[in-house]
Amino acid sequence: MVKTDQTKAKLKQIGIKLAKDIGAGKNPTLDVPIRALSNVAYDPKTKLIMLGDKTAKRFFFNVAHVRKFVQTVEVAATAKELLDVDKHLSLREVFYRINRTLPGTNINIVDEQEESNKAIEDLELITNASREQLHINANKMGSVVGKVVIKDKGDLVDWSKLGSGGWAIPSNVEDIEFVKVNAKFIIYMEKAAEWERLHEDKVWEKLNCIIMCSQGQATRGVRRLLQRMHIEHKLPIYVLVDGDPWGVYIYSVLKYGSISLAHISERLAIPGARFLGLSADDVEKYDLKRHIIKFEDVDKARLEQISKYEWFKNNKEWQRQFDMWRKLGGKVELAALSSKGISFISDKYIPDKIRNKEFLD
Amino acid sequence: MVKTDQTKAKLKQIGIKLAKDIGAGKNPTLDVPIRALSNVAYDPKTKLIMLGDKTAKRFFFNVAHVRKFVQTVEVAATAKELLDVDKHLSLREVFYRINRTLPGTNINIVDEQEESNKAIEDLELITNASREQLHINANKMGSVVGKVVIKDKGDLVDWSKLGSGGWAIPSNVEDIEFVKVNAKFIIYMEKAAEWERLHEDKVWEKLNCIIMCSQGQATRGVRRLLQRMHIEHKLPIYVLVDGDPWGVYIYSVLKYGSISLAHISERLAIPGARFLGLSADDVEKYDLKRHIIKFEDVDKARLEQISKYEWFKNNKEWQRQFDMWRKLGGKVELAALSSKGISFISDKYIPDKIRNKEFLD
Repeated sequence: MVKTDQTKAKLKQIGIKLAKDIGAGKNPTLDVPIRALSNVAYDPKTKLIMLGDKTAKRFFFNVAHVRKFVQTVEVAATAKELLDVDKHLSLREVFYRINRTLPGTNINIVDEQEESNKAIEDLELITNASREQLHINANKMGSVVGKVVIKDKGDLVDWSKLGSGGWAIPSNVEDIEFVKVNAKFIIYMEKAAEWERLHEDKVWEKLNCIIMCSQGQATRGVRRLLQRMHIEHKLPIYVLVDGDPWGVYIYSVLKYGSISLAHISERLAIPGARFLGLSADDVEKYDLKRHIIKFEDVDKARLEQISKYEWFKNNKEWQRQFDMWRKLGGKVELAALSSKGISFISDKYIPDKIRNKEFLD
Repeated sequence: MVKTDQTKAKLKQIGIKLAKDIGAGKNPTLDVPIRALSNVAYDPKTKLIMLGDKTAKRFFFNVAHVRKFVQTVEVAATAKELLDVDKHLSLREVFYRINRTLPGTNINIVDEQEESNKAIEDLELITNASREQLHINANKMGSVVGKVVIKDKGDLVDWSKLGSGGWAIPSNVEDIEFVKVNAKFIIYMEKAAEWERLHEDKVWEKLNCIIMCSQGQATRGVRRLLQRMHIEHKLPIYVLVDGDPWGVYIYSVLKYGSISLAHISERLAIPGARFLGLSADDVEKYDLKRHIIKFEDVDKARLEQISKYEWFKNNKEWQRQFDMWRKLGGKVELAALSSKGISFISDKYIPDKIRNKEFLD
């Protein structure tokens, strides 16, 4: 566990640094990279939304800083404790773990979970370790099947022999070892219902791929699992979402990262991910016009917002898509493909798209 | 697959009956049990919310009936098709599958998914088969681990050898075979974060039990899986939820069923389920008062509503709980137990409660 040792060492360094400050009679300080829009930018070279290198000093003896200062140190101590005993806590549990009243006062270390969450994000920046490496877990969600054998917590798990359910993806996938990967690509989809469709139709066996889902926006565990398999096993990632601005947004976050998690893009984003569908062209090609669900105002606003994203605004192919969606005036769900046949999506739609390389980049 | 054959036979009977009506020049009719509050009651003997035996006749030649009549027949035809090819669809996919315009008119079979959903519920009543037996699936969600081996789709799956993720529970668990069950009880919890806590602490190994979760309200797949193991393997079910009216509601639905699904209580509800926590007594006993989150008006209203449920209103122990919650004036989350120690819930809270049989019935 070299990674764990490194993270522990970083946490220890923070403590040693602060102790030195105190010993030298100096005002204890932490250098915290700034997580504001002013310090976030899209980097066309790496194709990632990245945090800039601006940092701010946080002082203990400063009424405006002390609360955040103490919260960050408390969270660091909790992370150190978790790494020492090799256990994990959720964000909510960390909030409760550090939530106490300072003796002789009526001041609580934290009043809202938002405060401990922010402190954890700051700690990610200070240590350059992800929340997961600090043993603080996000939501657990999602399923996966395919010809892959992993080793996790001492168990060998064969993702191709798990019945109709598949493997439940944990919130933290840092320590998983890939023992055998016998697949050519991964299809990630936003909906569990689509996943069950593809699994029942044995798409992963027929196309020799992996199928994975969470629900709506992909969880951090799912994003990291996709990224690790993409990097470590060179597996192409194809994203299958509904034909609407929200589906494109899910794809965009998977591929380029997000502003709120810009500091962790390198550990979560997958610049090589591709959009498999549902595209505006599919609506014509597969005769789905009668299944268009009219855009609400909020959908239209989202579409305009996304079309102006830096990574989309000079992309001709995507601008063509956005124009077509504007003309169609509504969204089309993947489930609408059921109107063509129970297994149309598995037997025709996906195999054709993969064979003809019909994806957007 | 005797059950499948029976369901197919029932669907066929509907078609034969309607064909006979038509052949005899009669107005085709369907007898549909009434799913209104007037026909729903709590049965203290079975401890289930059950549908009464009132039925209504639905006529084809009746402008008020014809739309629902046709929708029900369309859904029956789709279920028959699914059973014939041994495939499943989600509710959303069924909506799209039957959604077409009647030739020569501008009338659609269905305009909203609500219509096909209602038709499916009616079909459950007419055939006395659950939606799952009709091969129409609900949401997929949830994870499980424990010393259990199942057979599903030809795979032998050992729930004790699945690393940190566990088995992903499918939406439909009708065809799962329990090959080996070596556990004394099941703990069901509403939150995946708690499940990961208990799994990391190996609670299922130490207490020789099964741990299962979905997210919030239990999915039908989870409820049915719990019920099957409770009935087929006599496993006690302990429900672990946050200390608030919503937690009690989750417990209530698991145990007694719900009004909207009263017609299917016998296939989903678990009258023997017990409430493990978090109870109002726990707040005192484990010194959790500082973690009380004040009730909003909506929480208070929910508490009053639940305290008047027929199955709670004459239950002294539950009324005592409701009184204590009223006095506490707020909710307490299970995650608050983290303040006592990272694994306090696993090492102390749960083992003590089980050992001392501290559960509510």
